[in-house]
Amino acid sequence: MPQSGLQGLFSLFVVFAAAKVGEEIFERLGQPPLIGQIVFGFLVGPAMLGWVTPSSTLDFMSEIGVIFLLFETGLDTQPEEILHHGVTSFMVALIGVLTPLLVGWWFALAAGENAVTARFVGTLLVATSIGITAKVLEDFGATHTAFGRVILGAAVLDDILGLLALSALSSFSSAHPHIVNLLLTLGFAIAFFLLVLLLRHAAVPRVSGRIGRLRSRAPIWSMALVVLLAFSVMSAEIGMAAIIGAFLAGVFLSEREEIAVPLRQQAGAVSSFVVPFFLATIGLRVSIHALASPRSLYLLAAITGIAIVTKLVACALSALPLGRRSALLVGLGMIPRGEVGIVVAAESLRIAAIPQAFYSIGITMAVLTSLIGPMLLRLFLRPERRPVPAA
Amino acid sequence: MPQSGLQGLFSLFVVFAAAKVGEEIFERLGQPPLIGQIVFGFLVGPAMLGWVTPSSTLDFMSEIGVIFLLFETGLDTQPEEILHHGVTSFMVALIGVLTPLLVGWWFALAAGENAVTARFVGTLLVATSIGITAKVLEDFGATHTAFGRVILGAAVLDDILGLLALSALSSFSSAHPHIVNLLLTLGFAIAFFLLVLLLRHAAVPRVSGRIGRLRSRAPIWSMALVVLLAFSVMSAEIGMAAIIGAFLAGVFLSEREEIAVPLRQQAGAVSSFVVPFFLATIGLRVSIHALASPRSLYLLAAITGIAIVTKLVACALSALPLGRRSALLVGLGMIPRGEVGIVVAAESLRIAAIPQAFYSIGITMAVLTSLIGPMLLRLFLRPERRPVPAA
Repeated sequence: MPQSGLQGLFSLFVVFAAAKVGEEIFERLGQPPLIGQIVFGFLVGPAMLGWVTPSSTLDFMSEIGVIFLLFETGLDTQPEEILHHGVTSFMVALIGVLTPLLVGWWFALAAGENAVTARFVGTLLVATSIGITAKVLEDFGATHTAFGRVILGAAVLDDILGLLALSALSSFSSAHPHIVNLLLTLGFAIAFFLLVLLLRHAAVPRVSGRIGRLRSRAPIWSMALVVLLAFSVMSAEIGMAAIIGAFLAGVFLSEREEIAVPLRQQAGAVSSFVVPFFLATIGLRVSIHALASPRSLYLLAAITGIAIVTKLVACALSALPLGRRSALLVGLGMIPRGEVGIVVAAESLRIAAIPQAFYSIGITMAVLTSLIGPMLLRLFLRPERRPVPAA
Repeated sequence: MPQSGLQGLFSLFVVFAAAKVGEEIFERLGQPPLIGQIVFGFLVGPAMLGWVTPSSTLDFMSEIGVIFLLFETGLDTQPEEILHHGVTSFMVALIGVLTPLLVGWWFALAAGENAVTARFVGTLLVATSIGITAKVLEDFGATHTAFGRVILGAAVLDDILGLLALSALSSFSSAHPHIVNLLLTLGFAIAFFLLVLLLRHAAVPRVSGRIGRLRSRAPIWSMALVVLLAFSVMSAEIGMAAIIGAFLAGVFLSEREEIAVPLRQQAGAVSSFVVPFFLATIGLRVSIHALASPRSLYLLAAITGIAIVTKLVACALSALPLGRRSALLVGLGMIPRGEVGIVVAAESLRIAAIPQAFYSIGITMAVLTSLIGPMLLRLFLRPERRPVPAA
């Protein structure tokens, strides 16, 4: 135990310090800081310096990291903002999910892969990374713009659609497809959303006064953490990702400013500690093996290209009601794949549905789109002189 | 991966919620809240309800928890406070370590155990839990009293002595005792302490201005986390516990009030999240097996009794220069065994030096002293009307 504890602590130190150095350097170069954290995770990882290797400790910290990232994003979100552009968000999510799914599927069949692998490639391309997207919007100070709200709403929706697609993928791989389970998950998801929206106005103001009178240390913050963990568990239980629950917990608690303001500070203190692990671990996972053969390299390039073009075009076209400039920003903002893509790859490898090479291609595609998306977005956002984030 | 992630998240939720309920109930009953968290960890654990079992996830959160607890304690400590009572602290630590070591050793031999087990029992009784002690002082608002400073200083010292005793135990169990390694660890420990004390006046004021100008998010808090992780790793590398490094990191950063005040808030937000896991996991580890046979029950009762009486008498007598009342409080405050005792038990089990039953006895003794110490302390502190902790 002490041995493994030391090893774990050492990797936490290296990854955290590397992420912070990367953030600072990219911030000074005028590049998106989240990319610096991914790149420096890649640098200290097995593909380059080899100071740390992916481990269950880092995966766990990364999971806690993305949960707090989404909680913080939720705390900063009033659902009215997202619902105001609800139809646009829904169209962006739906068309932005179907297009890459079908194009990826068709491409893999055309490239001579079998039917199972082809379904896997399509599913891999479905979901925009809500974690990366939330961080991009925060870094660019764009959370409360019209295109920011559409991106956030669509990212939440298409994460759910992505997880439904994953369930479908798993059930098609098994003998009898569980269409009932899929519909159940969808039903639970809708019920959970509605419950949160209804209860936040009814329950939060009534309960918060009582909680403030509790005698425990930091009662409101403690209760917020209980809500965060409970919503994350519930969300995972009904087949959505835990991060959707974390986001909803933030939205739930954002109702009253006098509660939300101190909670944002406290969540921010935890986020500063845990979010770098989420970002750096993405870089750490990149495998050089994916680039080892010409065939793999070709597949990686083609699949990454399809991931970028299909999402960009489908989402931008669906967002045209916002105007051409905002529609383009929405398309660019939806490019990054991440958590769900990585889960799809890991799950498909686990059920032995795909060759090992496709796992590496999937992970590397997710990382590349997480790098390229924010870089492109930055090019088009420059004229506005994006605000400097507060210390 | 998603499966195990869900399982981990569920146990985090149950343990955190249980700890918070225990804290609130014990606070309302006028009992030490840390005991409530341990007791409710016990209640949801395998010995009682069985809702959660000890897991690597909970052990990891518990480790992070005690690191932040000691970091927070360090941030609240000016080394001058401890050095002011340095001689008393040193005597309390030294005599408070030797007495239980020798009495425990002698008792086990007298009870008919073999020489290796006898050395183990002695080593088990050595170290006061700095984690529990720090929490007790915080809960009682006694961190800055004379007896509080002596307890804290002595607890830090005897944790180091306890880890040296553990190294000695391991090396005696192997063929050739590594006396050189022991002296090296001691030398490194002293050098580390001196370096921290010297550098905090020289380096912190000069560097902090520059760090404040960094462009990353929350630069001072980020840099504090880098220092925390670095000191913890260094401390573990040279053979001390990681938590000693965490404490020193806090002391190092406590130099300037304008830095320490916001850091205390940020560390507090993280602590509220992670410390409950440290406390509840202690209760979770209690095994009913230790009580299964009359012989085990007798050994547990005797060893726990020795643990309490030897520490109380030895430390109180050594602290007599503070006056009789403060000396008694010091003796009571030093009773809880914890991290080091648990590490000794785990390490001894790992090298197969002791029978399984003694592992359970060791863990249960650590938990019982962590419960009884604060309860006794509270009896004698009552007349002072201890301050209500701030929200």
